[in-house]
Amino acid sequence: MTEITPPAGAETHGIGRAVIIGAGLIGASIGCALSTAGYAVHLRDHKISHARVAAGLGAGTLEPPVSTDVALVVVAVPPGAIPDLVVHSLQVYPNATVTDVGSVKAGVLDTLWQRHVELSRYVGSHPMAGSHHSGPMTAHPDLFVDRTWVVTPHRRSAAESVDQVRAAVRACRAREVIMDVDDHDAAVARVSHLPHLMSVLVASRLTGIPERDLMLAGQGLRDVTRIAGSDPMLWQQIVGANSDAVLEELRGMQDQLGLLIKAVEATPATDDLQGQLERGVAGTRKIAGKHGAAAVRYSEVVVAIPDEPGALARLFGEVGAAGVNVEDISIEHDPVREVGYLSLSVAPEQEDALVETMLSHGWNVS
Amino acid sequence: MTEITPPAGAETHGIGRAVIIGAGLIGASIGCALSTAGYAVHLRDHKISHARVAAGLGAGTLEPPVSTDVALVVVAVPPGAIPDLVVHSLQVYPNATVTDVGSVKAGVLDTLWQRHVELSRYVGSHPMAGSHHSGPMTAHPDLFVDRTWVVTPHRRSAAESVDQVRAAVRACRAREVIMDVDDHDAAVARVSHLPHLMSVLVASRLTGIPERDLMLAGQGLRDVTRIAGSDPMLWQQIVGANSDAVLEELRGMQDQLGLLIKAVEATPATDDLQGQLERGVAGTRKIAGKHGAAAVRYSEVVVAIPDEPGALARLFGEVGAAGVNVEDISIEHDPVREVGYLSLSVAPEQEDALVETMLSHGWNVS
Repeated sequence: MTEITPPAGAETHGIGRAVIIGAGLIGASIGCALSTAGYAVHLRDHKISHARVAAGLGAGTLEPPVSTDVALVVVAVPPGAIPDLVVHSLQVYPNATVTDVGSVKAGVLDTLWQRHVELSRYVGSHPMAGSHHSGPMTAHPDLFVDRTWVVTPHRRSAAESVDQVRAAVRACRAREVIMDVDDHDAAVARVSHLPHLMSVLVASRLTGIPERDLMLAGQGLRDVTRIAGSDPMLWQQIVGANSDAVLEELRGMQDQLGLLIKAVEATPATDDLQGQLERGVAGTRKIAGKHGAAAVRYSEVVVAIPDEPGALARLFGEVGAAGVNVEDISIEHDPVREVGYLSLSVAPEQEDALVETMLSHGWNVS
Repeated sequence: MTEITPPAGAETHGIGRAVIIGAGLIGASIGCALSTAGYAVHLRDHKISHARVAAGLGAGTLEPPVSTDVALVVVAVPPGAIPDLVVHSLQVYPNATVTDVGSVKAGVLDTLWQRHVELSRYVGSHPMAGSHHSGPMTAHPDLFVDRTWVVTPHRRSAAESVDQVRAAVRACRAREVIMDVDDHDAAVARVSHLPHLMSVLVASRLTGIPERDLMLAGQGLRDVTRIAGSDPMLWQQIVGANSDAVLEELRGMQDQLGLLIKAVEATPATDDLQGQLERGVAGTRKIAGKHGAAAVRYSEVVVAIPDEPGALARLFGEVGAAGVNVEDISIEHDPVREVGYLSLSVAPEQEDALVETMLSHGWNVS
């Protein structure tokens, strides 16, 4: 699709000329979104194949722009390469606002300070669009729709440049959040980097235990360790770029772990352990549930499904025909039998109807 | 369903008279499975409503047995209540083998030693059937089919009693694993209790951070903290009953956390951090993938789906019609828009067909 019509309801914001450096999933998707919104987008990537694929998807052109015409540069490269490319872009495009989409913000700003670069045209940002994919093949103009996108102005940023970045965020139809650079980095250390590293530590321990122990592993272990499977190179750069905030979290975790050990040692003489477990429950409730509402408890119905094409289709067809609205689904696979266990979460008042429907169609419900 | 026909292919093992103490999900499901296999099952629960529901589901009768006729007693109560009920059962049913289904095994055995109870008729066991539900309403004879069920004989257990428990495990069509009591407890500390407590620590920290930080949270945080939402009373009992093995794991984690902090402090001067991140990846690969095979990487296709009845049905109908076999699914809900993002994992060679099918039916694929 080389031509994309703006979706109904999309506003077209400040039409301008933009350069996107890095045509991976994020960069190419921003290109698609900005092109859709009416920007003239120029793509750059040291992997020319990435830039070509992105251009083919409607993310922009491979033609170089007249550098003085460029109003916005988006640096969308791996964290380690961001500071140099921001400096470079400020020099090459003298009239452009430069932003980046890295997940850590202070380091970029520090580099600009250290190199005595004029800072007013740089405004960092961070779109929260997660994906395991890194290439542009699955780029899409809607990748950021209603996702949080943090913009991090600083003391020296020009109001005009902040507006330029905010306009681009709105053009991507993301949910804009303005944060101080250090507040942003502390926040991602808390909600992303620390959880990631804890997942890594739990997963690491599995490398040193007897094989047989793993037969006793369940879905909980899989959930806790899933993100530890992410690209170590990327995460080394992310954690390295945010090491101060991450170290503060890790040291806080060290204190908490010490208290937990004391609580387990004191069991059952004291209730400290239960208090800590309850604080964990309270923490899970703080993560917003569906649609921004407080976390809701749904009823869960588990159905055994044969591992064959069409089984899920048949099941969801029957669920739909019964008028049941499934709120969430997950599959746990049996490690030996060719079968999966599908968990369907539904509003408590729909549980009975769902169970009846499933049983009447011959499914094994547990 | 008060009458259940044994499913085709199920063997009927050593018919005998069994008492199940505790008619929650696990106890009632064992009752259903043993009844299906031909056992005469008697149910006991201090909540008579639970026992009645279980009986209604075909788990057994509420009539008390002649105590000398009982061949097997299954104690399926919360961990804290197990030791007393095992002692009680050994006394009340003089000819019965007594087993329990608690997730920690050494404490029960220690209690029997301390109380000078004749141990030969006690053999512990631990079925790995996870569920958030605690009542008998969703009990099912197939709950344990192909799930790991550990049996833990000890030095003093009579061969006949071990056989009795193993026969019951096979009657439930579970996958039997024989382990030493202490090996079992060390294993669950490693693959279940430690991951649980780490999830609790990560979730706990969310209670003390600014609300705004949570806008930056993604699916990774949700995955890591999901199990921290489990019943604190139950987990206090589990951890308390396995405190020695859990403390060993927690202290090992303390050491690892210390090394991680050193590695982050030393970044980027050393590669230690990347080495630790790589060990995390190696750990995730050790957890068996689908059907007992090594973990496989699937291609993931993300589709935006409106939050309304029938949408999933339509989608899976189209997927099925295209002959695509979905290996795994998950939904991430957008916290504001009434829409969910459905991740479909498929074999890499089916990815293109899936994307084409979805696009041709008008879905938003990212």
